[in-house]
Amino acid sequence: MAGSSIGTIFKLCTFGESHGIAIGGVIDGVPANFELDLEAIQKELDKRKPGQSAIVTQRKESDTVQFLSGIFEGKTTGAPIGFIIPNENQKSTDYKHLEHTFRPSHADFTYQKKFGIRDFNGGGRSSARETASRVVAGAIAKQMLASLGIRFSTYVDQIGGIRFQSTEFFDQELIESNLVRCPDAQLAAEMENLVREIRKEGDTIGGAIRCVIENVPIGLGEPVFDKLHAELGKAMLSINAVKGFEIGSGFSAITMRGSEHNDLFKTDGTTKTNHSGGIQGGISNGMPINFRVAFKPVATLMQDQLSINTMGEEVTIAGKGRHDACVVPRAVPIVEAMAAITILDFYLRNKSIHL
Amino acid sequence: MAGSSIGTIFKLCTFGESHGIAIGGVIDGVPANFELDLEAIQKELDKRKPGQSAIVTQRKESDTVQFLSGIFEGKTTGAPIGFIIPNENQKSTDYKHLEHTFRPSHADFTYQKKFGIRDFNGGGRSSARETASRVVAGAIAKQMLASLGIRFSTYVDQIGGIRFQSTEFFDQELIESNLVRCPDAQLAAEMENLVREIRKEGDTIGGAIRCVIENVPIGLGEPVFDKLHAELGKAMLSINAVKGFEIGSGFSAITMRGSEHNDLFKTDGTTKTNHSGGIQGGISNGMPINFRVAFKPVATLMQDQLSINTMGEEVTIAGKGRHDACVVPRAVPIVEAMAAITILDFYLRNKSIHL
Amino acid sequence: MAGSSIGTIFKLCTFGESHGIAIGGVIDGVPANFELDLEAIQKELDKRKPGQSAIVTQRKESDTVQFLSGIFEGKTTGAPIGFIIPNENQKSTDYKHLEHTFRPSHADFTYQKKFGIRDFNGGGRSSARETASRVVAGAIAKQMLASLGIRFSTYVDQIGGIRFQSTEFFDQELIESNLVRCPDAQLAAEMENLVREIRKEGDTIGGAIRCVIENVPIGLGEPVFDKLHAELGKAMLSINAVKGFEIGSGFSAITMRGSEHNDLFKTDGTTKTNHSGGIQGGISNGMPINFRVAFKPVATLMQDQLSINTMGEEVTIAGKGRHDACVVPRAVPIVEAMAAITILDFYLRNKSIHL
Amino acid sequence: MAGSSIGTIFKLCTFGESHGIAIGGVIDGVPANFELDLEAIQKELDKRKPGQSAIVTQRKESDTVQFLSGIFEGKTTGAPIGFIIPNENQKSTDYKHLEHTFRPSHADFTYQKKFGIRDFNGGGRSSARETASRVVAGAIAKQMLASLGIRFSTYVDQIGGIRFQSTEFFDQELIESNLVRCPDAQLAAEMENLVREIRKEGDTIGGAIRCVIENVPIGLGEPVFDKLHAELGKAMLSINAVKGFEIGSGFSAITMRGSEHNDLFKTDGTTKTNHSGGIQGGISNGMPINFRVAFKPVATLMQDQLSINTMGEEVTIAGKGRHDACVVPRAVPIVEAMAAITILDFYLRNKSIHL
Repeated sequence: MAGSSIGTIFKLCTFGESHGIAIGGVIDGVPANFELDLEAIQKELDKRKPGQSAIVTQRKESDTVQFLSGIFEGKTTGAPIGFIIPNENQKSTDYKHLEHTFRPSHADFTYQKKFGIRDFNGGGRSSARETASRVVAGAIAKQMLASLGIRFSTYVDQIGGIRFQSTEFFDQELIESNLVRCPDAQLAAEMENLVREIRKEGDTIGGAIRCVIENVPIGLGEPVFDKLHAELGKAMLSINAVKGFEIGSGFSAITMRGSEHNDLFKTDGTTKTNHSGGIQGGISNGMPINFRVAFKPVATLMQDQLSINTMGEEVTIAGKGRHDACVVPRAVPIVEAMAAITILDFYLRNKSIHL
Repeated sequence: MAGSSIGTIFKLCTFGESHGIAIGGVIDGVPANFELDLEAIQKELDKRKPGQSAIVTQRKESDTVQFLSGIFEGKTTGAPIGFIIPNENQKSTDYKHLEHTFRPSHADFTYQKKFGIRDFNGGGRSSARETASRVVAGAIAKQMLASLGIRFSTYVDQIGGIRFQSTEFFDQELIESNLVRCPDAQLAAEMENLVREIRKEGDTIGGAIRCVIENVPIGLGEPVFDKLHAELGKAMLSINAVKGFEIGSGFSAITMRGSEHNDLFKTDGTTKTNHSGGIQGGISNGMPINFRVAFKPVATLMQDQLSINTMGEEVTIAGKGRHDACVVPRAVPIVEAMAAITILDFYLRNKSIHL
Repeated sequence: MAGSSIGTIFKLCTFGESHGIAIGGVIDGVPANFELDLEAIQKELDKRKPGQSAIVTQRKESDTVQFLSGIFEGKTTGAPIGFIIPNENQKSTDYKHLEHTFRPSHADFTYQKKFGIRDFNGGGRSSARETASRVVAGAIAKQMLASLGIRFSTYVDQIGGIRFQSTEFFDQELIESNLVRCPDAQLAAEMENLVREIRKEGDTIGGAIRCVIENVPIGLGEPVFDKLHAELGKAMLSINAVKGFEIGSGFSAITMRGSEHNDLFKTDGTTKTNHSGGIQGGISNGMPINFRVAFKPVATLMQDQLSINTMGEEVTIAGKGRHDACVVPRAVPIVEAMAAITILDFYLRNKSIHL
Repeated sequence: MAGSSIGTIFKLCTFGESHGIAIGGVIDGVPANFELDLEAIQKELDKRKPGQSAIVTQRKESDTVQFLSGIFEGKTTGAPIGFIIPNENQKSTDYKHLEHTFRPSHADFTYQKKFGIRDFNGGGRSSARETASRVVAGAIAKQMLASLGIRFSTYVDQIGGIRFQSTEFFDQELIESNLVRCPDAQLAAEMENLVREIRKEGDTIGGAIRCVIENVPIGLGEPVFDKLHAELGKAMLSINAVKGFEIGSGFSAITMRGSEHNDLFKTDGTTKTNHSGGIQGGISNGMPINFRVAFKPVATLMQDQLSINTMGEEVTIAGKGRHDACVVPRAVPIVEAMAAITILDFYLRNKSIHL
């Protein structure tokens, strides 16, 4: 059953496989009469695209978005925005050897069993290439939110054992000042070295991303099921390779006492601490929202791996191709995009709270 | 905007405030012609209800569910099941002092600011009392899933610093053999002592719950947005006091290498390890699903706390009333209910994959 | 699959069978902080209830609504409004003879075949009794819309061959001044006589209802699929016994020429004619909305009818019980309720058109 | 708020304006592993396209669909099918004179007022060109339904005062044997003459389409709101220029008696008459479904018309361009497409009725 849409008012539906003609999407429920900066959207895509730096996959894709509808003389019309991102290396035969093979910890096995058929080229529909469409919608959402003063700071919090451990808001310039997108130059250098080392071994490594959102108005979130952090969690967990999500104090709250965890109010309604992560009872409280997302190590290795084929026979998969040793630097714009899509949707939902 | 429903085919809509006339819900999309065990549903409610043991809140509520529709001669008819759970201590005036006060880390402030009005009695709509309705729907879902062989094992994994750290499937009898619902008797005793101690101090403590689901058919989950673990995550994060969710390896995947994390196949299609937690590419792979949910310490303390009133003036909130020092033992049936609702919904969604 | 909900923001979910314990519903997405007139809601129910006059069914049901949640000190809180209407003659054994019989042009056959089980008492879930819950939600929607100046005029346009044929707005007093709810006293008397005559013969007769809505703001309706008249049409066609829907010129447009049908503008943006029925391109244009709904004759006759039983054998169904000879007078509040629910939902949806 | 999607499982989302780069859509929830006949899809588009015969608009558009995803080696994969139909005469400046003018009975006024901006070229998003995307999705649905034995017969029932008045099932060959798509050759000739005559006068004329669907399984439809005919009605009313919908006996039921209207059963469960139009209680009963759709005359005339501009001043709109004098012959494939989309969606929804 249909699972390719997200959002209730600001709604994204994506389509496309890794090696098909194009990927793309439709954004419906776009607020009308808003002037878009189309170049800024492309810049967001560039942050995600392969080949952008020495530490990411060297696959060649320009990831150029083409808008087909919903924009008139530079402004949104309220009609759905349809867009495509052509796949440039679509005719690749790199994957013919995978036609009858299930790669470990990929979605080959589950797609084959579920649908009885699968496009095996580059992971087909299960490829993280699909997230480029999310970045397009997220970039539009971010521009709209920026006009309301809502700002995002998303950065790499951890790669392997190297952890930054901050919940601060950092500027884009600082985050973009190094290849791993960690605001701490020293740790960033260590992380970069770790990624290079892991790559040399043909292996991969996990990581974590922190997202901080400032100036979110009080009142976003629709209890009891559509709590703001519940939908943020779903949005994050829908990103390829994500294994965990925590809001505010998150898993560290387990060992805390209430007397320590409670966020006491100041008289202006803000709180002295922010263990809540900007959300109480599922509704934003005006404090910065912050959450953390855990990514597993990429499943594609540059090493031989034992696996099985569709007949249930043992096979060896040779490590070849061009892949990321660590996905989190390129996942930063994806996390931010999904956060922006979610926040804008709840901003619009909140407009109908009163008559 | 409406946020009181969850599910797409098997759909629960809840209503009701903590101290109103009744809470309840409507379950729509119920598979027809299924014989229900109504007593078993009440037993699930009993696991969640206040006053069940010495270590939980001593508030008196019998939590008796009354079914109003959708069941005919003991069987589901396919029509929506409406039900109510009358509130027995509804006339309480315990909360009059909170009319103009915002309790720290509760939803008082955000509800007031969002809606411009709030039922301040016992937290009103934001009270965890609402989760009793979820337990009703979850109990029905569990009976249906049990008839398909799908079984749940949900237990307390951690209270404060005391951690069980297992991903095994344990029988109900073992889980129910102690007050904290931890399958390890030794650790359970320690946890119980910790809760008693914390309570004596008028304080509260966080915890974590593990849920393991066996015999889930291969193929449940609808990429790219409605991935099975993404919806499980949303379902869990929608429960009061939950701060984090992780599937399979979860946050521990951050520090792992791909060569270590990849789940290698056996020739029968099962995997040698289960870092994936039973889900790959957002679709169940037939291995046990397992996830972990982090709960913050209860915000209501039996201690004086500084706070503010609706005029922005400082006030002191006295610690009084009857509350849980640790919520996780009573949250076990809620986590299991939300898991069952989600799994049944995806089971039904998967039926339309082929013509 | 779940089909018991309507609306996207202002959302009604109903439950309950004709002879179960109670019918009821949950209204979610209710605008907050609105003072409700609860007596006025009950008055709307009274317009629909059986036994209200000599020309309708004499079945006894007081149809008293009980609100369970979402209302605090007389005002909506934004939380879902749960409500029930107890069934007073629920223990009836009038229907035992129908356990194995399919009544012609009822839903007995289709429910049995679809679900494999059916509550045969009084039509069970397929009974028009369910529409009482719609009247509750509609009455709330009407109060909210009235506060915005939006007013409804719903009346009987036709019974059998007797047709009023107006698209005017008439006051409630005039509509309620006779038993058939037709604003023309002369025609109303004729209609009433026709109904009495038909009833004497143990037969039934069809009819039509006109609904006119004034002061609808320009801009309601969400193309391309959720056009305002498309959702009004769905809402009407979901009412028991409805066979047709037409907006504005409706079926008479078939024989008209464009030069005659086009609604020319006045300089103030209103139009000289209103063949469009207040909606152009699926969006309200500020002119009165008017549509017409066709009802078939009630299927239950006070005559013997040949039919079949569940074994496929011929049986005779004796005409007995208490039923309406013509449903349209009692359907007036139902049509108006569904119209109000739809308009309010679109009013709320329209709030997110701009940032 | 987002209104560009229809369906719950088999779900179509469309985008695109009349004179933008391309129109298109995404179909999600497509049953997997089904072999598509891509040529047959294009043939359906050809039935709708402009310039196909002497009696329709002579605008040039090849309406060639390009599939971008969801199809692998000729088969559906279960992934969303993205497609585009490039607009070939997109650079037209024919509409510059309409930038500040509201055409009577078009959507110019309502779009401008609702969104505060509008693409005025050829009606922009409100153009019936959008329906080409529906025909693509409908053609796919029809192929799937055909594999289940479900067949459609859609034809022109009426143009102006000339009415066919049949509810029979006619073969495609017969329907396609004349330009107006009416199975009666004699009436078709009269209709064709009428259209030519009307066109000569620079005027337009309304019409009606009948759709008959055979071999629909018993059990499709989800009461109480998502009744099969309610969703068919919505689907039809969402088509440009549609003013009315009736199922089975429709508006003629108003003057019928119950004793005449009731469909008596045969012992095999079929009925002797079919006033119900194949649907009882909102659920298909296995008899042929038949409904009728009323279309208003096209609003664009080849005559001068008085109107207003955006400043509220009177202007004269000159009749020019290439338009249909009667839309119903080209609307036949659109009605059939929307019917097929709806039936397939309910077919898939019905799969989750039992565990």
